[in-house]
Amino acid sequence: MARTGRRPGNPDTREAILAAAREAFAERGFDNASIRAIAAAAGVDPALVHHYFGTKEQLFLAAMKVPINPGPVVARVLGEGRDGAGERLIRTMLSVWDSPAGAAAVALVRSAMANDAFARMLREFVTRGILRRVAKELQLAPAEAGLRTNLVASQIVGLIVVRHIIRLEPIASTPAEVLARAVGPTVQRYLTEPLDSLPAG
Amino acid sequence: MARTGRRPGNPDTREAILAAAREAFAERGFDNASIRAIAAAAGVDPALVHHYFGTKEQLFLAAMKVPINPGPVVARVLGEGRDGAGERLIRTMLSVWDSPAGAAAVALVRSAMANDAFARMLREFVTRGILRRVAKELQLAPAEAGLRTNLVASQIVGLIVVRHIIRLEPIASTPAEVLARAVGPTVQRYLTEPLDSLPAG
Repeated sequence: MARTGRRPGNPDTREAILAAAREAFAERGFDNASIRAIAAAAGVDPALVHHYFGTKEQLFLAAMKVPINPGPVVARVLGEGRDGAGERLIRTMLSVWDSPAGAAAVALVRSAMANDAFARMLREFVTRGILRRVAKELQLAPAEAGLRTNLVASQIVGLIVVRHIIRLEPIASTPAEVLARAVGPTVQRYLTEPLDSLPAG
Repeated sequence: MARTGRRPGNPDTREAILAAAREAFAERGFDNASIRAIAAAAGVDPALVHHYFGTKEQLFLAAMKVPINPGPVVARVLGEGRDGAGERLIRTMLSVWDSPAGAAAVALVRSAMANDAFARMLREFVTRGILRRVAKELQLAPAEAGLRTNLVASQIVGLIVVRHIIRLEPIASTPAEVLARAVGPTVQRYLTEPLDSLPAG
């Protein structure tokens, strides 16, 4: 599986940068962690960080060992329009999690559950890397976007946890297509339909 | 918080029984783990296990450090009828998780995520202690009950994880009543309404 970074570089230097990045992102969050400070902590020049990993977002994905950058995937799926967006989102999400990349993602979720710093990083990544793009692609009303996208996250995270981590049966072995049709309307409602608790959208 | 067991008993003996129980339930599952074998592994008489902990289910809850036995709660909530069952279930679930007992439950879920043996125990507990009771209370068609209750579990587990473990905002601080109204219809649909992927119910 392709790594997120650009150049393999010196493995020790790479690891030192990733370790410094993990610490910085966990301590200060994505926005406040700077490439300059991460480079200083790793004892390298900031240019080398960019050379190895590209943008701050790409460095963040590499530090979290995220096997796939979900932002562009989400943008593509939702870019096809509001109708059926929920079902397309679940179908795409399941195809990633059922693939070899999914195994790496399961490890990531498990770490985030067990470790507060990792949970903070995952929270920031989900919010910035996925949910804000969902809100933007679907042009959700700002007052509703937060709760709507959080509700979508609750259903998707729950599906991943019961299917891939707790492995409840029958859902762990139910074909993805059956789940997409069963869960799609839930996500569609959270995204675009009036919710009892929100002003009709 | 009250323990699930009946008598406090000798703390060392109690702990030895709980440790043997955890190992037995994780290795052999709830059905195949016997009080007799657990007692033997702990070097005590089976009668003492019953004396300290009551039934095998109560021993299981104590071994998993589950602060509340959800089975009777679920039965009571669903016993009030199919109409609005989804919203009542979410409202009750949130009131438990938002209470002090919820903090213990969060620790339990985190352990289950990080550890395969614990994940197996949690899977068994959720299936036996909760989902089968849901299916029975609502008299779900046997061919559909598995997937329907698993879908409910996916939404509830996801809500717990994003609200209490990853702590996404705004959902982590959204009033429970707002969430009950927003998520209730999802659970209602999974429980009692026709799902695209299932024969109309």
